[in-house]
Amino acid sequence: MKILVVGASGTIGKEIVSALEGDNEIIQAGRNGADVSVDITSPDSIREMYAEIGKVDAVINASGKANFSAVSELTPEVNEKGIQSKLKGQINLVLLGMEHVNDNGSFTLTTGVMMDDPIPMGASAAMANGGVKAFVKAASIEMPRGIRINSVSPNIVQESWDRLGDFFAGFEPVPASRVARAFVKSVNGKQTGNNYEVY
Amino acid sequence: MKILVVGASGTIGKEIVSALEGDNEIIQAGRNGADVSVDITSPDSIREMYAEIGKVDAVINASGKANFSAVSELTPEVNEKGIQSKLKGQINLVLLGMEHVNDNGSFTLTTGVMMDDPIPMGASAAMANGGVKAFVKAASIEMPRGIRINSVSPNIVQESWDRLGDFFAGFEPVPASRVARAFVKSVNGKQTGNNYEVY
Repeated sequence: MKILVVGASGTIGKEIVSALEGDNEIIQAGRNGADVSVDITSPDSIREMYAEIGKVDAVINASGKANFSAVSELTPEVNEKGIQSKLKGQINLVLLGMEHVNDNGSFTLTTGVMMDDPIPMGASAAMANGGVKAFVKAASIEMPRGIRINSVSPNIVQESWDRLGDFFAGFEPVPASRVARAFVKSVNGKQTGNNYEVY
Repeated sequence: MKILVVGASGTIGKEIVSALEGDNEIIQAGRNGADVSVDITSPDSIREMYAEIGKVDAVINASGKANFSAVSELTPEVNEKGIQSKLKGQINLVLLGMEHVNDNGSFTLTTGVMMDDPIPMGASAAMANGGVKAFVKAASIEMPRGIRINSVSPNIVQESWDRLGDFFAGFEPVPASRVARAFVKSVNGKQTGNNYEVY
């Protein structure tokens, strides 16, 4: 298969590439992507990326940002990063990529544990995660040409524990390689509309 | 209690006002609100509304729009109504209203059945619903001064069946008065972080 991985150089993205590259042709994308550059907060940038790479069998997104902020300090402006990147960025990869995915292909997006097991300062990210999860479930029932769509919800990963562990007191971090398996399941399996929890 | 109801003249909003007005002072808000006007897609308009009404004990939102569109025809632009109104409009009512709600007060937002039981053309609304639900759950753990936050997820209501029933084949519509009861539960009860399903 020809597989586009957006956010390929990230902690989880690298493991996704590693898990899939043996059997597939991988196109690595990101802000400074090895194969193609894209800023998912810009619909024009997404359009340019798809125009450059042609048709693919699968689109994986492992990128998307949101600000950490206590809810009492969260302003509409601070919340906007999660809206533009983690929420709309991911959804626009689907809306603008539909015609660039082959019949029976797939999209796999990223949500996250904070929507199910809230942490302080996590409301903006949780909002984006919940929006993506619900979009995936609803969109799956009317995707054209057998195209499937799923999301993967990672727990905090071991590789980020030193940097982010204080936000996730008591959580059991998982290896990013385990999260990558859920992306493989989404791409190679037959389920659609699912949010694979890797907790 | 002094209760702000945004979307007070809508199908569900009217029933909320009716259920609460006997025991409380209700401020009815909306595009052309009986007491105060607000456009929830505009942070400035939300700020002006709160400045005008002073402190309240509860904020209820029963407004918020999203476009109905098949996912293969959904563009970033068409999706924007759901982002600006049903998602950000509701969340900004919380972020900008925090200082205008008395200690131990509450916010109650509106989600909807389509995020749990998807319908064709419902992906944009489902996205907004899911974002609001996750925000409510995550924000609830760090709301200041004992302020609670919940959402109500209505099924299609009987009053809208003639107009919208074709989108909801096989659904069992519920009376809007039953949906209003969940808002009363949120305002008068003690739960927080909950999404009350009225299915």
